[in-house]
Amino acid sequence: MDKLIDKALAGDTRAIARIISLIENGDPVSDAVMRRIYPLTGRAVVIGITGSPGAGKSTLTDKVIESFRKQGKTVGIIAIDPSSPFSGGAILADRIRMQRHTGDDGVYIRSMGTRGSLGGLSRGTREAVLLLDACGKDVIVIETVGVGQSEVDIIKLADTVCVVLVPGMGDDIQIMKAGIMEIADVFAINKADKPGVDRVAAEVRLMLDLVKNRPWTPPVHLTIAENGDGVDEFAESILKHHDFIKNSPEGAKVEYRRLSSEVEDILLKNLSRRTEKIWKNHMSEELMKELAARETNPYLVAADILKKIFPHG
Amino acid sequence: MDKLIDKALAGDTRAIARIISLIENGDPVSDAVMRRIYPLTGRAVVIGITGSPGAGKSTLTDKVIESFRKQGKTVGIIAIDPSSPFSGGAILADRIRMQRHTGDDGVYIRSMGTRGSLGGLSRGTREAVLLLDACGKDVIVIETVGVGQSEVDIIKLADTVCVVLVPGMGDDIQIMKAGIMEIADVFAINKADKPGVDRVAAEVRLMLDLVKNRPWTPPVHLTIAENGDGVDEFAESILKHHDFIKNSPEGAKVEYRRLSSEVEDILLKNLSRRTEKIWKNHMSEELMKELAARETNPYLVAADILKKIFPHG
Repeated sequence: MDKLIDKALAGDTRAIARIISLIENGDPVSDAVMRRIYPLTGRAVVIGITGSPGAGKSTLTDKVIESFRKQGKTVGIIAIDPSSPFSGGAILADRIRMQRHTGDDGVYIRSMGTRGSLGGLSRGTREAVLLLDACGKDVIVIETVGVGQSEVDIIKLADTVCVVLVPGMGDDIQIMKAGIMEIADVFAINKADKPGVDRVAAEVRLMLDLVKNRPWTPPVHLTIAENGDGVDEFAESILKHHDFIKNSPEGAKVEYRRLSSEVEDILLKNLSRRTEKIWKNHMSEELMKELAARETNPYLVAADILKKIFPHG
Repeated sequence: MDKLIDKALAGDTRAIARIISLIENGDPVSDAVMRRIYPLTGRAVVIGITGSPGAGKSTLTDKVIESFRKQGKTVGIIAIDPSSPFSGGAILADRIRMQRHTGDDGVYIRSMGTRGSLGGLSRGTREAVLLLDACGKDVIVIETVGVGQSEVDIIKLADTVCVVLVPGMGDDIQIMKAGIMEIADVFAINKADKPGVDRVAAEVRLMLDLVKNRPWTPPVHLTIAENGDGVDEFAESILKHHDFIKNSPEGAKVEYRRLSSEVEDILLKNLSRRTEKIWKNHMSEELMKELAARETNPYLVAADILKKIFPHG
């Protein structure tokens, strides 16, 4: 295993891919790998790109990568794909577009499935980001499918959250935006050649104005990913925000919050695993029958189990 | 408190509302209330209604309620609204439509905010459902905003999951559908007067055909909520599915699964509360600085805390 990690740290993409697969499949080496590589992390610019379905996230991501490559930066991409419940696969037609980077040694692309938790981040996403960071990628992009929980989870992994909106979305999409608003660090209003772009930009700025005394005011960029308009400026804002996080007292607070939620997240994952195990040991056909007949109830059953784990309360 | 519960059980809507508020705000009486009312639960038909944004869920829910009311059934509605990150409110223009039921004693409507977990179920949703069940509502409808995690969480609360689709949605929406497909018990293709309805219906049936030997094959209904077309048949399928859950050996398995996840959920919530408390006590400015400087790492910190919670491993 140590040799595999050495290879990955030396930039061997096959070693990187293998380690990510091991972690994704819940292999117990994960903890050891993380302890070994963690001291080497914290150098990459970690970006999350999210937004409404159909906002053109993939094309914009593609162009942002191009912009960073022009500056000589190496890029790692974690594309979060919804696993199909029937095939178990994690392939989206959209992703195929990005394959044109595959000839470029400076770009590493990894697709990870959401594995059932609709829209949630895949198991091992955090660890994959840390590995790419330790392996020396300058920029790491996490791209989500933009349909749910991932929008919120992403903030726990990314230093800079980019939200992509488009003109002419319906009211239901606006709702989604409301939830995304509070986690955004940089906005792109994409497809800015379409009618209604000024209205969306004005709405976003209005919502941002509602919060006073922000240490960082999220810039709002108009982009046309298809032809690259506005993309370099958008990429520049991302680096500016990263600089803010790393080099200001207010940014340090953001970093603390992220680290704190990182600890909580690791704890919660461990607790979920334990809970599942504890309940499986406690569960019996008889108990299930009693529950179904309402002779006992889930609250009493849970209290019993907790008493066993914590006899002193 | 006992008096308040008595009042609620006698049908006093103000008492019901107050108990739900207490639970929603994390009041510790919650456990006691649940133990008291749980034996009275299990009689209601608990329905979850979910689907793509813009599918017309609110209008369809409204008409389904009407259909149940015509049969003399009482109805409780839990509307899951995304809390605005800025105002903290939980009001959607859509919900206002349902207010026309407020003059009807047989209908109780409660809106619950998602409180930050974008699309996730609110705290206390499960308990609110149980309370309405104990208070004698014949049918309980949980309506989600349809943008994420709630679609998956809902299966843990509802006996019957209804998925609302519409013709002419884009590819990104199709993805969302894929995740919803596996939890659906009854389908409605709403706005069935729009072009493309046959294609969506065919696609759904095709996906359903991929899974062989289902004990229950989800029926696919064409509805036009605006004028009520197909709604009674849709409501009938819901009752048929409920009958299947309650009165067939295969249905018992579904019920066992739901009860099992109920216990797990209560356990996990308790463990999470404990962990949060322990982490808050453990956290210090100094530790955060060490974390930020990468002198330690979240994996080591989490391992330390877990040792404190579970000293025997």
